[in-house]
Amino acid sequence: MKQDRIRLGHGSGGLLMSKLIRDVILKYFKNDVLRRLEDAAELPATKRRLAFTTDSYVVDPIFFPGGDIGKLAVCGTINDLAVKGATPKALSLALIIEEGFEFSHLEEILKSAASTARTAGVSVVCGDTKVVEKGKADKLFITTSGVGVIQQSLSKSKIRTGDQIMVSGTIGDHGIAVMNERLNLGLKFSVKSDVAPLHGLIHEMLKGGPAVHFMRDPTRGGVVSVLNEVLEGSRKGIVIQETALPIKKQVRGASEILGLDPLYIANEGKLIAFVDKKKAERILSIMRGHPLGKHAAVIGEVVKEPQGVWLHTSIGGTHPLIQMEAEGLPRIC
Amino acid sequence: MKQDRIRLGHGSGGLLMSKLIRDVILKYFKNDVLRRLEDAAELPATKRRLAFTTDSYVVDPIFFPGGDIGKLAVCGTINDLAVKGATPKALSLALIIEEGFEFSHLEEILKSAASTARTAGVSVVCGDTKVVEKGKADKLFITTSGVGVIQQSLSKSKIRTGDQIMVSGTIGDHGIAVMNERLNLGLKFSVKSDVAPLHGLIHEMLKGGPAVHFMRDPTRGGVVSVLNEVLEGSRKGIVIQETALPIKKQVRGASEILGLDPLYIANEGKLIAFVDKKKAERILSIMRGHPLGKHAAVIGEVVKEPQGVWLHTSIGGTHPLIQMEAEGLPRIC
Repeated sequence: MKQDRIRLGHGSGGLLMSKLIRDVILKYFKNDVLRRLEDAAELPATKRRLAFTTDSYVVDPIFFPGGDIGKLAVCGTINDLAVKGATPKALSLALIIEEGFEFSHLEEILKSAASTARTAGVSVVCGDTKVVEKGKADKLFITTSGVGVIQQSLSKSKIRTGDQIMVSGTIGDHGIAVMNERLNLGLKFSVKSDVAPLHGLIHEMLKGGPAVHFMRDPTRGGVVSVLNEVLEGSRKGIVIQETALPIKKQVRGASEILGLDPLYIANEGKLIAFVDKKKAERILSIMRGHPLGKHAAVIGEVVKEPQGVWLHTSIGGTHPLIQMEAEGLPRIC
Repeated sequence: MKQDRIRLGHGSGGLLMSKLIRDVILKYFKNDVLRRLEDAAELPATKRRLAFTTDSYVVDPIFFPGGDIGKLAVCGTINDLAVKGATPKALSLALIIEEGFEFSHLEEILKSAASTARTAGVSVVCGDTKVVEKGKADKLFITTSGVGVIQQSLSKSKIRTGDQIMVSGTIGDHGIAVMNERLNLGLKFSVKSDVAPLHGLIHEMLKGGPAVHFMRDPTRGGVVSVLNEVLEGSRKGIVIQETALPIKKQVRGASEILGLDPLYIANEGKLIAFVDKKKAERILSIMRGHPLGKHAAVIGEVVKEPQGVWLHTSIGGTHPLIQMEAEGLPRIC
């Protein structure tokens, strides 16, 4: 590969594309299934039910403090499988590249995606590469899909009144890190994206038996979106304690400057869990014993009434937490 | 949905996105798995091995004679599973939409994708929606992934000297139809894209036992790309008979005007099969008995030597069919 920029021909099914795949992509993703470059990858049969998910990543900028679009895409799909109670097994990686994109950036992103997948013990087994004309995409979009094996089925329908609502760590880090980078605010703080694969933490939380009823990762729309979606079609309510929310001082400060509420900001390495009240202490201690759950906290409870999602503030008020029309900024993931 | 164009907020995790998904997307894709809108879809366990594949679609224009990007995305993924000998079971559908895209076009495409999937008996079980700023994408990109259950394992390694090479119908239709539309050539012909789901035809071809050794759908890079890829790492050769190639007169004419060779042009509803010589007649007759294989033909044979891919021309010459650097035009799929 002597070219240092992607050309249209790299996406058009001839020798150039073949070289891109063999010399660049396969260099990072080494496994026997992908190497065959067949139309579809072959996966083993399984006695358990499967989980299947997909997400496109269009984050802007593609490099941000704490990660990049490659790491984000792999973690995002791993997490969507993991919060469903599944062990991630195989990922696909589809690239839409803008003509003129630098090879060095592509390599950096592929390396990051590959190392994230390898560390997480998940194989990228199939993929696709398309190139569009300059000005018809924004550098690089990645779509990852994933297949996992369900270990313990979690579902909204298992949520009960009294369930303790936990978050695995500080909220708002990813969104604030990306926004600071994109808007070039020059805010002098060191908040990094929390992007991380959560399946290890979740495995620990689930292995002691059915204490966790439901989980979700609060990405776009943040914690409030997850809580509202959970209640859809239910007559229960949720009360969140403001004082219990783990939020970094710098995220709090940046949110104030930007006029945003951390409860609505995207996270990429956090989970919200609904846990049986009697088993909450045990689960909390398991979470805190894991590197990705050190700052885990019980932030609220499922109540019979009032219906809806409520925030009990530090000065004693109670306010509804309703979903906004749209998150403050697009392309955060 | 009173807005008639997609806004950035439709991709940002709030109420607008939720409405887009519920009011527009779920209207077309009706199944119990998708309706749950969980982070991952649940699929049943299976005793057979699985096939897993992904492709992004960036075709320009998004509507073309014979289809649109929605039908193309669904068929493409079904076909990638089917040529691997798998029965397609579940699809994912991830949309990257340009701000300002018309709702009416989105609906038309979703309707087309949904009806293609429904007719093919495949469910779209999970998805994603992202919106990027005007000028940062080109109307709509779709990434579909698919999971299937392998009925009969086909692989390059099963190809033998003497195998008959078959194509399921006329070649070059898709590429020529898209190019004519894009370039606004105004060529007065009625060639439509051949985009179609091939799993039904393939099912018929496989059900009589192991006569078919390998299959692939000649999309980007056309028939020549497939034949060259098949030979990689092998010492065999392939000889194709020019006179045996089914090519529509109009495709032949348009190719001449455009300076293209139909053997290099993308197809989206055709397959190339490598078939045991003794069973070739039976398979050919099965193909011709299926609506998508009416014009099936034996176009060549696997030979011991010469190595490489060769075209035996109508005037008696023999020319190498080598892969080009890049296909004539990008964004054909």
